[in-house]
Amino acid sequence: MKETIINVLEEVELDQPIFIEALPGIGHVGKLAADHIIDELNATKFAELYSPSFPPQVLVDDNGIIEPMKNEFYYLKSVGKEKRDYIILIGNTQGLSPEGQYEICGMILDFVEKHGVKEIYTLGGLATGQPVEVSKVYGAATNMKLAKRLKKHGVILRSADGGIIGASGLLLGMGNLRGMEGVCLMGETPGYYIDAEAARALLNVLMELLKLEIGTEKLEERAKETRKMISKAQQMEQEMIERMTLKPGEEDLRYIG
Amino acid sequence: MKETIINVLEEVELDQPIFIEALPGIGHVGKLAADHIIDELNATKFAELYSPSFPPQVLVDDNGIIEPMKNEFYYLKSVGKEKRDYIILIGNTQGLSPEGQYEICGMILDFVEKHGVKEIYTLGGLATGQPVEVSKVYGAATNMKLAKRLKKHGVILRSADGGIIGASGLLLGMGNLRGMEGVCLMGETPGYYIDAEAARALLNVLMELLKLEIGTEKLEERAKETRKMISKAQQMEQEMIERMTLKPGEEDLRYIG
Amino acid sequence: MKETIINVLEEVELDQPIFIEALPGIGHVGKLAADHIIDELNATKFAELYSPSFPPQVLVDDNGIIEPMKNEFYYLKSVGKEKRDYIILIGNTQGLSPEGQYEICGMILDFVEKHGVKEIYTLGGLATGQPVEVSKVYGAATNMKLAKRLKKHGVILRSADGGIIGASGLLLGMGNLRGMEGVCLMGETPGYYIDAEAARALLNVLMELLKLEIGTEKLEERAKETRKMISKAQQMEQEMIERMTLKPGEEDLRYIG
Amino acid sequence: MKETIINVLEEVELDQPIFIEALPGIGHVGKLAADHIIDELNATKFAELYSPSFPPQVLVDDNGIIEPMKNEFYYLKSVGKEKRDYIILIGNTQGLSPEGQYEICGMILDFVEKHGVKEIYTLGGLATGQPVEVSKVYGAATNMKLAKRLKKHGVILRSADGGIIGASGLLLGMGNLRGMEGVCLMGETPGYYIDAEAARALLNVLMELLKLEIGTEKLEERAKETRKMISKAQQMEQEMIERMTLKPGEEDLRYIG
Repeated sequence: MKETIINVLEEVELDQPIFIEALPGIGHVGKLAADHIIDELNATKFAELYSPSFPPQVLVDDNGIIEPMKNEFYYLKSVGKEKRDYIILIGNTQGLSPEGQYEICGMILDFVEKHGVKEIYTLGGLATGQPVEVSKVYGAATNMKLAKRLKKHGVILRSADGGIIGASGLLLGMGNLRGMEGVCLMGETPGYYIDAEAARALLNVLMELLKLEIGTEKLEERAKETRKMISKAQQMEQEMIERMTLKPGEEDLRYIG
Repeated sequence: MKETIINVLEEVELDQPIFIEALPGIGHVGKLAADHIIDELNATKFAELYSPSFPPQVLVDDNGIIEPMKNEFYYLKSVGKEKRDYIILIGNTQGLSPEGQYEICGMILDFVEKHGVKEIYTLGGLATGQPVEVSKVYGAATNMKLAKRLKKHGVILRSADGGIIGASGLLLGMGNLRGMEGVCLMGETPGYYIDAEAARALLNVLMELLKLEIGTEKLEERAKETRKMISKAQQMEQEMIERMTLKPGEEDLRYIG
Repeated sequence: MKETIINVLEEVELDQPIFIEALPGIGHVGKLAADHIIDELNATKFAELYSPSFPPQVLVDDNGIIEPMKNEFYYLKSVGKEKRDYIILIGNTQGLSPEGQYEICGMILDFVEKHGVKEIYTLGGLATGQPVEVSKVYGAATNMKLAKRLKKHGVILRSADGGIIGASGLLLGMGNLRGMEGVCLMGETPGYYIDAEAARALLNVLMELLKLEIGTEKLEERAKETRKMISKAQQMEQEMIERMTLKPGEEDLRYIG
Repeated sequence: MKETIINVLEEVELDQPIFIEALPGIGHVGKLAADHIIDELNATKFAELYSPSFPPQVLVDDNGIIEPMKNEFYYLKSVGKEKRDYIILIGNTQGLSPEGQYEICGMILDFVEKHGVKEIYTLGGLATGQPVEVSKVYGAATNMKLAKRLKKHGVILRSADGGIIGASGLLLGMGNLRGMEGVCLMGETPGYYIDAEAARALLNVLMELLKLEIGTEKLEERAKETRKMISKAQQMEQEMIERMTLKPGEEDLRYIG
């Protein structure tokens, strides 16, 4: 495999779907939230992405079954008060090299653009490295109108003290160049464990923004499951990504998503 | 050289051969087992693979003769109780970069697929970092049927606490996407030395699974020879690969093959 | 995005423009000087460059608005005593990998060559790691004639104890192979903070060389603003670049621009 | 620049030239020897190689003049007792990434093969990390006949305890796959300084092997000059290459050339 590929499992027609991205990152906050949406609203997987820039390995599940590194596209049709369509991207990894990240994000944007996407929501965690009493939600947007909307819903706009690293940032930056607009939402978390509370806070804001209704009762249970399922290998990989991007003593406000 | 190439030395017709991979990894367990099969069953080399993602160096043998970094394909015709054909892949290195690993494994799969391969066995070591009394064999599979078969033969299925890094994992993961099935077998070893006992345990399981009969008497002797032949450079390279993938304090259950 | 791209915002005809480069580097000396020229002389942005070798992230400004990693081309028409045209390149990042740096600099040179550039001035800082009383200006040139001219204007020619790393060096080296000539000017700075004094010293020499007149009163104010605007992420990125190229204990005379 | 390029300065017809390579490495032993041959026998530069895998920087000489990273091809016609032609490759750098090294060495071999090269001599240093009383010469060869010839001339054949890293190894390994034969000669040096004695020992063996006569009186002087000319940047770069390939505590017998 010399190039990133997308295997389409089902051809779907979507009506200006909203694109939600939640690839692995700090505290698995984004992933937990997106997995929850997929399960609760019964989303359908319709494509898989494989890349030579993913870690050169496979994962092994509890039953000894091998699972390749991949990203997965799900869709939802006509959900929420506004009866909108959605594309949700989850996965067990991100690209490792800068060039790989750009190639993969470019492929993802080609794919969702073809399906009519004009709005992007990227989900992640913001590691504070400290105990969190009530999980706040941080955010950034591609334009002032969206930034103001975030603020109105209680999202704390990120000040100038940090960038957004990885797919959550790149998809917004590259998407904006194609005329897409979007926001990044980050649930505050101490980091380094599967954080249901941060995911709940994130989901609450997202539901308000998207006028969706999803019960969050099962989130804690899901977090426990995820803790069990997330293999040591994945944790180590995540830490590897973090080591690539974080500096000791300055870990407090970085974001990887 | 800008791309991975395979030099074919002999055109062979094979009948749905079983593909066995044993590139350098922990404790040289897989390599030792595969070298043993090649010698005992008198396999024939029929192709060599060279890649710009291999370490940019050559090895020097005991006689001062230079040997390039390469992978080598051997074949066996109509061996064992089931008179099966085999392709066996060994070598003195693996690709260094993620992109290189994916490219090389893709080339390998193209090549063996062309020869009719539908089943893959990848061999390696599992470093426990502790003294091993009786070498156990760990495994993982691409589907439940194979996983159960492994279990029946005493193989311990890997739990969710680790991935399989390098060619041994990637060939199974990428092969499965092409409709191949397979297993990874890992001989438990303290690691960091040429471990004949782990190779013997691995071979015993492999022989049962494949209904092969191969004497293992010469394994200890072969291990000694290998210890002598494995140059310091190769050891250092192996350690380099390990440093790329292992984290201090968490080395206990990782696998590289 | 698999390749570096340049988005042209305005087609301009320029008459043998002088090319000034000031991408992020030590002490933001070059950037500060170039930003100042752009503002004071009211330069017009006419193209943007994006590259998959840039860091895979976005920046977030004080208002929570996302800004992609990019380089920006400005032009000036008929300015200074000699009524010359100019192209000025600034940006918030440089390529990370060697291959990326070469690709990006090649694209930049293609672009400015097409616009008639024959002279290049690259601007940067020279970190001494020590307090600087009066900021000196160091320099290097592509030929003896230009080197002598630098000397006449008080520029200290770099002795053999250092290379010029990054775009400031590469554009001159690669440009020279295309028949362009040029100089690199480096304002002496303790490094690691936004240094208005180093930028002022640099600007003074540049104005003499180019027969430009630009007030430097607002530089200190601009430095303060820049200090505020330069996000922690950018600082960390800069430090990452520096870690890639500097060795502890030998940081005294390296240059990144 | 996206690919390695060779700029041909003069088209020359050569009669089965012997190819001598001496790119920067440990103790600058090979470089010193090759520079000496070029000067004493008055070789003519006829081509230059530039690569995006070279370090993304330029060097600055004593006069403040910028020099790009490059490799240079020289030729000699009808020299020595056997009136042989030669191609000599020197330079101020090597490729940084594995892929870059393979690409560059492939380009070099394409180029010299086109000129009729069938024999390769690669020159380097072997760092022992200890004071050297009388500099010995180590070697390796692509076949037994050449290895024996080395032994007859007092060269110590490298035992299995080390590979040959970089162009000196790769050119022999990749050249051999094209039917070229050759040897690598390494002058023993404590390393980390410009070692005229190691270069003299190396040259003496090379002159015997090639039936050349070259005075070595000026070598010490040349070493002094080189010490002065080799910029700190080059030293740092060399150390960077070494850090990429050496492990603390095992530095004793590695070779980079």
